[in-house]
Amino acid sequence: MELFYSRDIEGGICRLDQDESCHCIKVLRHRCGDEITVIDGCGTLYRCRMTSDSYKGVEAMVLSSEEGWGSHPYRLHLAVCPTKNNDRYEWFAEKACEMGFDELSPVIGDHSERRVLKTARVEKILVSAAKQSLKAAFPSVNEPVSVKEFIAEHASDNALKLIAYCFEDDSAPRRSIKEVLQGYEGSEIIVMIGPEGDFSREEAELALKAGFIPVHLGASRLRTETAALTAAAAVYLHHMA
Amino acid sequence: MELFYSRDIEGGICRLDQDESCHCIKVLRHRCGDEITVIDGCGTLYRCRMTSDSYKGVEAMVLSSEEGWGSHPYRLHLAVCPTKNNDRYEWFAEKACEMGFDELSPVIGDHSERRVLKTARVEKILVSAAKQSLKAAFPSVNEPVSVKEFIAEHASDNALKLIAYCFEDDSAPRRSIKEVLQGYEGSEIIVMIGPEGDFSREEAELALKAGFIPVHLGASRLRTETAALTAAAAVYLHHMA
Repeated sequence: MELFYSRDIEGGICRLDQDESCHCIKVLRHRCGDEITVIDGCGTLYRCRMTSDSYKGVEAMVLSSEEGWGSHPYRLHLAVCPTKNNDRYEWFAEKACEMGFDELSPVIGDHSERRVLKTARVEKILVSAAKQSLKAAFPSVNEPVSVKEFIAEHASDNALKLIAYCFEDDSAPRRSIKEVLQGYEGSEIIVMIGPEGDFSREEAELALKAGFIPVHLGASRLRTETAALTAAAAVYLHHMA
Repeated sequence: MELFYSRDIEGGICRLDQDESCHCIKVLRHRCGDEITVIDGCGTLYRCRMTSDSYKGVEAMVLSSEEGWGSHPYRLHLAVCPTKNNDRYEWFAEKACEMGFDELSPVIGDHSERRVLKTARVEKILVSAAKQSLKAAFPSVNEPVSVKEFIAEHASDNALKLIAYCFEDDSAPRRSIKEVLQGYEGSEIIVMIGPEGDFSREEAELALKAGFIPVHLGASRLRTETAALTAAAAVYLHHMA
């Protein structure tokens, strides 16, 4: 199924940007009068009829709309440290988007090797993944902040807040992500995944003080991007009948 | 942790092949007398002391061994159709190996676009993933066969046999993989994942006749490699306390 993406949908008119228009006209050869389907990235699908077929700026009239198209019954915010290798992070973002999640916060940890991230690239991948997996919403991507800043920002959040790390701390033993999810009735979840060198003890302490629950992701030793995907899968599967 | 891989472990002597020897001597600069740790790919870890440091063929004396090192409490066989893009298949193999699985069968479906696969490449990735995730065993990789051949080969298997496809068949309604796993007490599981174009009705029928249970992988529309990884995650999480 062909899907276009646009944020410019107002007053019953949808406008595609240059890339989308080019693809619409030059590759897919659409013309005035054709019906096209557009997602707004926030959950709504618009069925439209093209009124202008300029390859620089397609315009279409909205015929009908559907909210929550391809949505999932939970809100998952993943805070994942950028990996040394960008491909791995992008791969994780794509796969987690296919399963279903809502917000991505790249967080820089004390032990992070990669301390910057091109959010525009990740966003492009998410738009693509949303189109491919027939979802009208794709996760929003925040600008990178430090792990400590992220913890402080979410200290008062009423969500189920989880932090996954590899070391054991007798004063705060970790439970499995599966067990913790099973005990949670709500639908707002935040999961923090650390860098290759793991979260520092200081970051873990701050997280615990801010109401984050320490979890492990099973017996296997997972790379950052695999851990992030396992967390996404745990939530996805938790909500599976 | 540094791990070497060798299948040549006999009579208390371990021999590394050329690639591993080169890495051992030239990159990691090991010399006679050094202790090295070697996995055999089948589950056993060997602690050895080097007796020859030729970069063409390191030899080491076995000091001790440990069976089932880094093992998992189930046996998972994934039969996954090769994806059009090789990278995607290799990503899935690597991530599923980190979580834990035992056998990979590339199967060619009626609707498969990619009908060949370089198993040697996949095996290399699995060796690497096993080393990185501290497992002494990595999944064996079979030569590609058709979906129909695979079904016939496993018709008499006593395992939990699952086939995931996207279409609905009222005569054989699909249950979620989570639900089916929850009802299974054993530890031998086979999961079949189809190509981009899904399994054909004929393949599905053959599978059902051979005792495969039809499952779905949740509400999301997943790419082949994501579906395969979701199945691996479902089994991994099912066995998580």
